[in-house]
Amino acid sequence: MSLQTSSEIDIIKAATSKIDQVDFEKLTFGSVFTDHMLVCDFRNGAWEKPVIKPYEPFVLDPSAKVFHYGQAIFEGMKAYKTEDNSVWLFRPEENHLRMNKSAVRMCMPEVPESIFIDGLKELIRLDEAWVKNGKGNTLYIRPFMIAIGSGVIAQPSTQYRFCIILSPAKAYYSGDVKVLIADYYSRAANGGIGAAKAAGNYSGQFYPTQLAHNAGFQQIIWTDDATHTKLEECGTMNVFFRINDTLYTAPTSDRILDGITRKSLIDLAKREGINVDVRPVLVDELVEAAKNGSLKEIFGAGTAAVVNPIVGFQYKDEYFELPKLEKSYATDLKEKLTNIQYKLAEDTFGWTVKI
Amino acid sequence: MSLQTSSEIDIIKAATSKIDQVDFEKLTFGSVFTDHMLVCDFRNGAWEKPVIKPYEPFVLDPSAKVFHYGQAIFEGMKAYKTEDNSVWLFRPEENHLRMNKSAVRMCMPEVPESIFIDGLKELIRLDEAWVKNGKGNTLYIRPFMIAIGSGVIAQPSTQYRFCIILSPAKAYYSGDVKVLIADYYSRAANGGIGAAKAAGNYSGQFYPTQLAHNAGFQQIIWTDDATHTKLEECGTMNVFFRINDTLYTAPTSDRILDGITRKSLIDLAKREGINVDVRPVLVDELVEAAKNGSLKEIFGAGTAAVVNPIVGFQYKDEYFELPKLEKSYATDLKEKLTNIQYKLAEDTFGWTVKI
Repeated sequence: MSLQTSSEIDIIKAATSKIDQVDFEKLTFGSVFTDHMLVCDFRNGAWEKPVIKPYEPFVLDPSAKVFHYGQAIFEGMKAYKTEDNSVWLFRPEENHLRMNKSAVRMCMPEVPESIFIDGLKELIRLDEAWVKNGKGNTLYIRPFMIAIGSGVIAQPSTQYRFCIILSPAKAYYSGDVKVLIADYYSRAANGGIGAAKAAGNYSGQFYPTQLAHNAGFQQIIWTDDATHTKLEECGTMNVFFRINDTLYTAPTSDRILDGITRKSLIDLAKREGINVDVRPVLVDELVEAAKNGSLKEIFGAGTAAVVNPIVGFQYKDEYFELPKLEKSYATDLKEKLTNIQYKLAEDTFGWTVKI
Repeated sequence: MSLQTSSEIDIIKAATSKIDQVDFEKLTFGSVFTDHMLVCDFRNGAWEKPVIKPYEPFVLDPSAKVFHYGQAIFEGMKAYKTEDNSVWLFRPEENHLRMNKSAVRMCMPEVPESIFIDGLKELIRLDEAWVKNGKGNTLYIRPFMIAIGSGVIAQPSTQYRFCIILSPAKAYYSGDVKVLIADYYSRAANGGIGAAKAAGNYSGQFYPTQLAHNAGFQQIIWTDDATHTKLEECGTMNVFFRINDTLYTAPTSDRILDGITRKSLIDLAKREGINVDVRPVLVDELVEAAKNGSLKEIFGAGTAAVVNPIVGFQYKDEYFELPKLEKSYATDLKEKLTNIQYKLAEDTFGWTVKI
């Protein structure tokens, strides 16, 4: 290992790379990590100097608050390599902004740009060989923060760890996705933490999602917990509905995550001349539209899958198959968005950032 | 360290004890841990052999699911030492049962009695010197389970760690507690994880509780998230209201934890001839009762504080002071419950279990 010190970030390089042990054609999403990670601890009211070092385990006290009180947040992002071997990020400032919003809601310190953005760029430069070019190949980026202070008393920690790990990924293909509309379980409360990318929001979905799996569905479309009449998210993604030629999606709220893919798709769709209506979408409307044939598409939107088309949905005892379209908004918008991400189309929005 | 193997549990004793470094008169709740801990990992669909070993840090991959998805649950219990130096647990089977209910809701494996109960007894036997006698002295017990499987994909882990750590504690005194009634923030959703002792439920409360602190309140009384009209929990405790001579508390639900102190107090109060009414209690009722003088007491109930009397509450812009009673239900029930726990009164309920 060689130690390289800049004024901003310490860099400890791995003696050898693991890259030759990885089959980049057979990657399970989120399971293989690059040679390095960025770690920065928060102690005594301040962020310490970040360090990029070989990927290695954390050593934490069994009473660390992350284990007991779930004080933990994360982000999901991707890096893309173009034909000329340059590497690009997609709207990273949005992830940084959202991470800090999550931090505030979870009583955690905000992460400065010099650590989140500059640290990420430095880390990716070091592990650039792990980003493969060719559309579909990406480097999945996982910035996260955990409470590392010890003590089994339910109070905010005074010590935190911010970390970025990187995982090479292939295009995400989930097969035919059938969804179940939630009429009992919920992912978020009014005045709760649903809008934060907080760890606890995700594990809370596991059990209802497993019940849905057992019944033959891949995902759940979450509804508002009070009435189960409003369609809110799909699994861990935002969700869009196409009725006739209008695209509907719920407004963000304290129950709904402000997805970056979501807002990018809205902008793209509008540019394409598609009518986009951001307003609460009711279960009854969806069922009615499915029955009268005006429901054309449903798709999830998120960083991992980009766009995840849904082939049918079940509500209570009734299953509705969606039409198979020659030219869907889902396919078209995904193509247009990924073309921008891979620099295969002009980025008129200024979304891409070169590393 | 000496290795002692039984058929059920491996025991690795610490070479030396830390006990002489601890000032048992000056203990901060949940911050000092005994010499040993019990650890048992779940892998390949089964629990491995539990091991009691010296208290030491966990070594976990940065992608461990507990860090990203909050798949973590815990319990809180206490051990009590009597005048004759015997050590007792209070309704441990209830904690075991609840841990397993939480496990099901969070898609985690249930912990067998041979690990949870027998393991706990064995651990306490080893660290018995850490339990001091004299009323008020307790050993706080923290059983918990975390997802240790790696991979940044939001799915249940296949690997888990169950662990028990022990922390000596003095009687919990929180000073005068003023509470704020929640009219915007919430702790749990209908169909959510509020009834599970899941990690994410606790960190979600930190921010609203901090806002309450800043406004001069120690706790929040949580209300239902849909209407904010029903009184549900107080901080991390269940909550009781005395109006005239009747004691009210909300029924448990998927938003409200089935507290062991709560149910014990209900049984005790009934035995004392107090009228107990378990039904939804409305904010409006409370305000009305405060105004007409029929509201006598509010108190929280939980393992750490046992009973936590409240001196006043604020709802929107109005603050209501509670009367100072010579003989309160809170003080009386706390005294009666702790007398049972310390074997100073006959345990007619059969709640105490000797180690």
